[in-house]
Amino acid sequence: MSYHEMPVRRINRYEGVVVSVRVDQARLSDGRLTLREVVEHPGGVAVLPLDADGRVWCVRQFRYPFGRELLEIPAGKLEPGEDPAVCAARELSEETGFSADSLRSLGCSYSSPGISTEVIHLFLATGLRPGPAHPDDGELLGVEAHPLAELVDAVLRGELADAKSVAAILKTARLLEETE
Amino acid sequence: MSYHEMPVRRINRYEGVVVSVRVDQARLSDGRLTLREVVEHPGGVAVLPLDADGRVWCVRQFRYPFGRELLEIPAGKLEPGEDPAVCAARELSEETGFSADSLRSLGCSYSSPGISTEVIHLFLATGLRPGPAHPDDGELLGVEAHPLAELVDAVLRGELADAKSVAAILKTARLLEETE
Repeated sequence: MSYHEMPVRRINRYEGVVVSVRVDQARLSDGRLTLREVVEHPGGVAVLPLDADGRVWCVRQFRYPFGRELLEIPAGKLEPGEDPAVCAARELSEETGFSADSLRSLGCSYSSPGISTEVIHLFLATGLRPGPAHPDDGELLGVEAHPLAELVDAVLRGELADAKSVAAILKTARLLEETE
Repeated sequence: MSYHEMPVRRINRYEGVVVSVRVDQARLSDGRLTLREVVEHPGGVAVLPLDADGRVWCVRQFRYPFGRELLEIPAGKLEPGEDPAVCAARELSEETGFSADSLRSLGCSYSSPGISTEVIHLFLATGLRPGPAHPDDGELLGVEAHPLAELVDAVLRGELADAKSVAAILKTARLLEETE
């Protein structure tokens, strides 16, 4: 067996609204004991809604840890036990009003795997049909459509830096190029 | 002024080894008060080392929150006040032994901007010169070289999911295609 670290004892250090933190005693392959800090996050989804004109429907949202608005694709946290595709359809509808004829998986994004359990399930939504948006209370979103090529340029210029959005935008661009 | 949220009072809830957590009382644009949970992270760097044969030098590392090894590009946390380019050169040398004639910025990655302050500074390292690796105590790394095109395929297949590595790999692939 290759190198591994086995949990010996879990100590819950913080129980929060979104995250909790534990510090585990863990045993390394060579038998030594060490401490490992883990941020537990419920995980989430992010959806790239691509319309028939090649535009991506994005949200501009105030992100408190950064003290400013960021441009991202629609996203949200998983409820306990929720199917990621169901969550993706729900968040897409809540934030943009769209429902989608097709939700294709773009794989997962591990946000910060050295310290956090957070996994974001990425989806490409096509066949968009409009409906009423209904954001969560306290969520103030601006919805904007941008051509996919412009978003790729914004990523390459470093202007769009949200990790889940970067992954979904660059993956989608490459998938569309491969099928052209 | 557009929608904003202003901190009113900070309450430190957890002080850890890598992260700390605070829960702020914040005032919304409409005057209402709310709570905002923030994971404070020192930030870090990630370096894509591209050799003259088009291979990327990666690290395979046990990631405790996932309980398994993940393939990533070399990376590490910023020391307080450290210049990201200096940190990138240091981490590249520690983890792979390489020094680089050129370190080009690939912009930043915001790992989880709804909850965390974490910013990863991304770099492309070229002009690699070998030297001795010297990982931190307790860091057990396997260093592997893979052609960039194979890593792009691994990202698209969902096999390589670390957010900072995905961003650096897909950005580098696109930059090289644009300059061809």
